[in-house]
Amino acid sequence: MDTPVMTNAAREALIKRYGAKATPSIGAWNETIALLLAHRSIRAYRPDPLPAGTLEALAAAAQSAATSSNMQMWSMIAVTDSATKAKIATASQNQKHIEQCPLFLVFVADCSRNRRLGDAAGTELASLDYLESFLVASIDAALAAQNAVIAAESLGLSTVYIGALRNQPLVIADLLGLPKGAIGVFGLCVGYADAKAVNEVKPRLPQEAVLFHGRYGVTDETGLIADYDQDMGAFSKRHEMSDDTWSGRVLNRLSNPANLNGRDRLSTILHEMGFKLK
Amino acid sequence: MDTPVMTNAAREALIKRYGAKATPSIGAWNETIALLLAHRSIRAYRPDPLPAGTLEALAAAAQSAATSSNMQMWSMIAVTDSATKAKIATASQNQKHIEQCPLFLVFVADCSRNRRLGDAAGTELASLDYLESFLVASIDAALAAQNAVIAAESLGLSTVYIGALRNQPLVIADLLGLPKGAIGVFGLCVGYADAKAVNEVKPRLPQEAVLFHGRYGVTDETGLIADYDQDMGAFSKRHEMSDDTWSGRVLNRLSNPANLNGRDRLSTILHEMGFKLK
Repeated sequence: MDTPVMTNAAREALIKRYGAKATPSIGAWNETIALLLAHRSIRAYRPDPLPAGTLEALAAAAQSAATSSNMQMWSMIAVTDSATKAKIATASQNQKHIEQCPLFLVFVADCSRNRRLGDAAGTELASLDYLESFLVASIDAALAAQNAVIAAESLGLSTVYIGALRNQPLVIADLLGLPKGAIGVFGLCVGYADAKAVNEVKPRLPQEAVLFHGRYGVTDETGLIADYDQDMGAFSKRHEMSDDTWSGRVLNRLSNPANLNGRDRLSTILHEMGFKLK
Repeated sequence: MDTPVMTNAAREALIKRYGAKATPSIGAWNETIALLLAHRSIRAYRPDPLPAGTLEALAAAAQSAATSSNMQMWSMIAVTDSATKAKIATASQNQKHIEQCPLFLVFVADCSRNRRLGDAAGTELASLDYLESFLVASIDAALAAQNAVIAAESLGLSTVYIGALRNQPLVIADLLGLPKGAIGVFGLCVGYADAKAVNEVKPRLPQEAVLFHGRYGVTDETGLIADYDQDMGAFSKRHEMSDDTWSGRVLNRLSNPANLNGRDRLSTILHEMGFKLK
């Protein structure tokens, strides 16, 4: 197979994302791909508000993403009120950037809108009681959110996803008035990055460890991960984080369900919120 | 609040997405947002292969998406072999575009890579047994996939997500050699659109029905959906589809679990595949 010729801009972006030793050869480059590859999650924001109509632009981008069978089983709630953001932060491991950012978006896996349609028509929507429907709603929300992220970054804004919104879903539901069959599945901070918080692009696993051809698997997964552990160790040191390897962090995070900070109760709580997960 | 001034390009794109009566006022416009708003799922492809390095560019875009705590709990499998694509199509409601497209991507919610790390370290990763971990893996896969979609569309390629990959997950796992703790959570056709299959942008629910401010809900949801039903009825007629309303389609799809085409067994099958969903 031909090795594609890469521009310098492509090569530099790939070195940032994969490290110099693990750079894949890509055959296409444009401003959009440059934007995607330059993504960084940002955890400190300036207080500056967003220009009028920014939220509506992000929502239009989000709604333009694919949605399973056009069922549109997601919603988004824009939170700009300081007191509400502070309460959400408290319920989400005190992540200060939730309070700082001018716009906090709650993405809702939302089976309730279609349930209301069924109720109005006197039709029992039995399929909403299956795990499949919760999964469709969560994936719909994720595709929409990622479009909002790309739109935001194209406007010079920064973002960070907040999975900790699932630590206390009932508190969030109460704050935002969610009906049964709707859960805030993750949040998204949106705003102008505090310049001090703009770090390097975070390296990812080498492409060979994640992208497979025809069948799952790769010959030397252990070696690939060992190389990545080295790169991420150096990255952590440069950013004055503890110099754990990536493997070490994964093992630490996943070995003790207490580190799920309440998300070990997600299945129980979803049932309480009207998702039967059959 | 000021009403943003919109360019003609923005106005036209919004009319296509929301209909003339429901066009929101957005305050930002650029080539990236134009690309996002112009998205269409395409279900017929020319056989032309993709240029060398295209797959690697899509994978680099996908890996650049956010991933929960950098755990990277997803993988992708590139399928280009005709016989394998035909078998996947057979297991996915005979969707011919799976066979037609030159590149079929299977997005894998993948807890197995981190499980292998734990096994090598002699560390039991108890948190992988929770619903939360399956959800993280599925959302990670969705964020990655949406970046791949945007990258593909920026290169003039088209895509369509294949949720029917979940109809028979064990068949797909067997075809692709998936280990325990890994499931093909959806597929993605990638290729050059057959010009005959390029339809209008599909209208979505009015922004007021999906985007809320501070609290969930809107005053006249029923009226908003009634207007949308009219728009979608007209859209369906123009495309020679049955002229059901959107509401009618949703009720039909969700009222009978038989219409889930096997996905009503997803919870059981996930357990068989090593996801405990605690």
